[in-house]
Amino acid sequence: MAMEIFDRDRLTELLKSRQFRKLRETMAEMNEVDIAEFIEEQEQEAKVLVYRMLPKELAADVFSFLEVEDQEHVINSITDYELGKIIEDLYVDDAVDMLEELPAIVVKRVLRNATPETRALINQFLQYPENSAGSIMTAEYIGLKRNMTVEQAFAYIREHGVDTETIYTCFVTDSKRCLQGVVTVKDLLMNPYETIIRDIMDEHIIYAVTTQDQEEVVETFNKYDLLCLPVVDHEDRLVGIVTVDDVVEVMEQEATEDFEKMAAMLPSEKPYLKTGVFELARNRIPWLLLLMFTSMLTGAILVSYEEALQVVPLLISFIPMLMDTSGNCGNQSSTMVIRGMAVGDIELKDVLKVAWKEFRVGIICGGVLAAANYVRLMIQYPGQPLVCLTIILSLIMTVILAKTIGCILPMVAKRLKLDPAIMAAPLITTIVDACSLMIYFQIACTLLKI
Amino acid sequence: MAMEIFDRDRLTELLKSRQFRKLRETMAEMNEVDIAEFIEEQEQEAKVLVYRMLPKELAADVFSFLEVEDQEHVINSITDYELGKIIEDLYVDDAVDMLEELPAIVVKRVLRNATPETRALINQFLQYPENSAGSIMTAEYIGLKRNMTVEQAFAYIREHGVDTETIYTCFVTDSKRCLQGVVTVKDLLMNPYETIIRDIMDEHIIYAVTTQDQEEVVETFNKYDLLCLPVVDHEDRLVGIVTVDDVVEVMEQEATEDFEKMAAMLPSEKPYLKTGVFELARNRIPWLLLLMFTSMLTGAILVSYEEALQVVPLLISFIPMLMDTSGNCGNQSSTMVIRGMAVGDIELKDVLKVAWKEFRVGIICGGVLAAANYVRLMIQYPGQPLVCLTIILSLIMTVILAKTIGCILPMVAKRLKLDPAIMAAPLITTIVDACSLMIYFQIACTLLKI
Repeated sequence: MAMEIFDRDRLTELLKSRQFRKLRETMAEMNEVDIAEFIEEQEQEAKVLVYRMLPKELAADVFSFLEVEDQEHVINSITDYELGKIIEDLYVDDAVDMLEELPAIVVKRVLRNATPETRALINQFLQYPENSAGSIMTAEYIGLKRNMTVEQAFAYIREHGVDTETIYTCFVTDSKRCLQGVVTVKDLLMNPYETIIRDIMDEHIIYAVTTQDQEEVVETFNKYDLLCLPVVDHEDRLVGIVTVDDVVEVMEQEATEDFEKMAAMLPSEKPYLKTGVFELARNRIPWLLLLMFTSMLTGAILVSYEEALQVVPLLISFIPMLMDTSGNCGNQSSTMVIRGMAVGDIELKDVLKVAWKEFRVGIICGGVLAAANYVRLMIQYPGQPLVCLTIILSLIMTVILAKTIGCILPMVAKRLKLDPAIMAAPLITTIVDACSLMIYFQIACTLLKI
Repeated sequence: MAMEIFDRDRLTELLKSRQFRKLRETMAEMNEVDIAEFIEEQEQEAKVLVYRMLPKELAADVFSFLEVEDQEHVINSITDYELGKIIEDLYVDDAVDMLEELPAIVVKRVLRNATPETRALINQFLQYPENSAGSIMTAEYIGLKRNMTVEQAFAYIREHGVDTETIYTCFVTDSKRCLQGVVTVKDLLMNPYETIIRDIMDEHIIYAVTTQDQEEVVETFNKYDLLCLPVVDHEDRLVGIVTVDDVVEVMEQEATEDFEKMAAMLPSEKPYLKTGVFELARNRIPWLLLLMFTSMLTGAILVSYEEALQVVPLLISFIPMLMDTSGNCGNQSSTMVIRGMAVGDIELKDVLKVAWKEFRVGIICGGVLAAANYVRLMIQYPGQPLVCLTIILSLIMTVILAKTIGCILPMVAKRLKLDPAIMAAPLITTIVDACSLMIYFQIACTLLKI
């Protein structure tokens, strides 16, 4: 129970009975995330009513946690003056996130009400490529100079800290805004007031470049357990910072993209319930079409062995089992490898180690499945030893093959600079289906002398 | 290029040419993560050699970033005195993580060399249930009293802050260690020295309970964008904190578990390359067996329509296409719903909204696939309009059915308090395979009058 501190019913009660002063006082004590949630639950008019009741130091914080539709609704219902206040109080990354999703006409009004400096900053940020370090960073950080003392640094933080997203890591820059060092508030606290920043700053800076991919930013964060990462432009000038909460969001987004790709879909931009039916269909159809046509190959293989099926009709009843099992086996090993590569546990150079491992896992899994099947076949078809042998041999071979193909293909994709996630269940299934049918019929024709 | 600051070749060079003093000086300037990486790349004996060269204030930090095998190797190669130093310098959560994986005999030696207080703390932490808030928290935090002034608080932090994982959030407790409030270093910096903590602390505390599941801890972190979360026992006493870096690790681990479950595997405890072949096989066989036996049902359906296949042999060639396509469609919608529920975008109450959405997506996808197939069938089998109609009708119906089943089953699982991730590709495929075959043959028998 990560405690819900406030009593939502009580707020609703206060709103309904129009006890606005009390409502306002209660909200002033609340967490901005909870207030945003409360606002989202209200009717359209009540939303703005409640929003305008917020103490002004809370307004921008709550605003940044609202859904984009509600942000738009609020923007359309407040005066230019109020709007200007909100924009100046928002962190640049939150403002940019919002502007990227708002309709053009609303964006214009927002920018018109920003100060020239804020407008310039927002425009600069809007230009960074999607999914780059620049697109997730924020501009508000504490910048110190190397000649300051710890005391001066504290004075500076006291003066400028209120509006920055994190004060705990401070960046030391020279007159050209080039990054020279990093000093944490912990360092400042642990040293006497007269210490010069230059002497305690860490010059071994871990940083990112604006154009770098956000996935690399996430990797750096995880590798070094960071709370924030400075971002520099191509002239080494500090332009912003990425904070850990943005990274957590990116991680979730990247995992979702992998889930989608592995289920043969193009990644979606928005949460499921906000994505239209046509967009959902558009994301799914390309792979469905491709896979449908490749599965026709499997159909063609089936037709080419029609004769065998006519001679021993029983053979047909094992086709779904063989196809499903090999698909599942391939899916298991490809998932392990794709995820292993995504989190950095498996690298390309491990390909032989992985293949050998999966080969052995395949022998064990195939053996166990074959044994279970043997018992069942002996009971169900006691007079058909050769058919039994066909099934069991095919099962073992297809399982081993599926495991091996399933682990190698994602690594091949990676080697070819493709996304390994495309080599997941759907494509692997189609490929191993065809292989397993060929193995099955080949063994059947040989053993049963068809 | 999240800059690799140090030149690894240079370090290797220094080690090889036995310039130990220089090596030591270079490492003293480096990030502990990079040093740990460098150590892991060395031969067994060189590992301990390099490790012992580390300045003592770095030793424990580097140690906590080593792989558990290397930790064991180091422990076995150092004196009891050195070992005692490391243990006291480690954060409790890192020590607990390590002890959970080390062999019993090594654990004994480690505990023997810890001070009684540390030993008691470690033992307490080892008892929290796996995946609970207690199991991921650490004991080192800054605890303040409500009557302190800001100045006293700073003095306290200066004295005790070196050994705590984060100093930026401080916790205010009463004489019984019950949590009363939270104050951040930012709050302290923004207020005059004579301010009393009581007046600036936030009493609306978001916290977790030791026995709470780690997934809920992650949700709370994400919802409120936290940097750390206090953990209390069942008597409301503060026992530890969870920091954001632990949460990032849990997030990655939970996503991996979902990937594994969705590919019909039991979640593994260790990274892929460290998991033995037998353990991998054991994680995969249960689901493979279950799915193998259920797919026999599909085989039985196939057999029961053997007659129809004898009359119109062409029908068999479309079976893989229909089965694969319906499996893929079901997979797509179940993945969207499972992931949507995991990240909180979709809730149980949305079930009708989701089903209606997927039904419409199914119509569009089915329509497009059928149209593409129509063109191909007209070219390939111009004289068989009724067969074509059978295929096309079956395709549309199975796609719609697969989409609808695929989105509803995960929600049913959640309603039954099962993990929705089990209703992913493998199980969905088996279920929709059987359905699609029945639809196909039913339509075929009706249209072709078999």
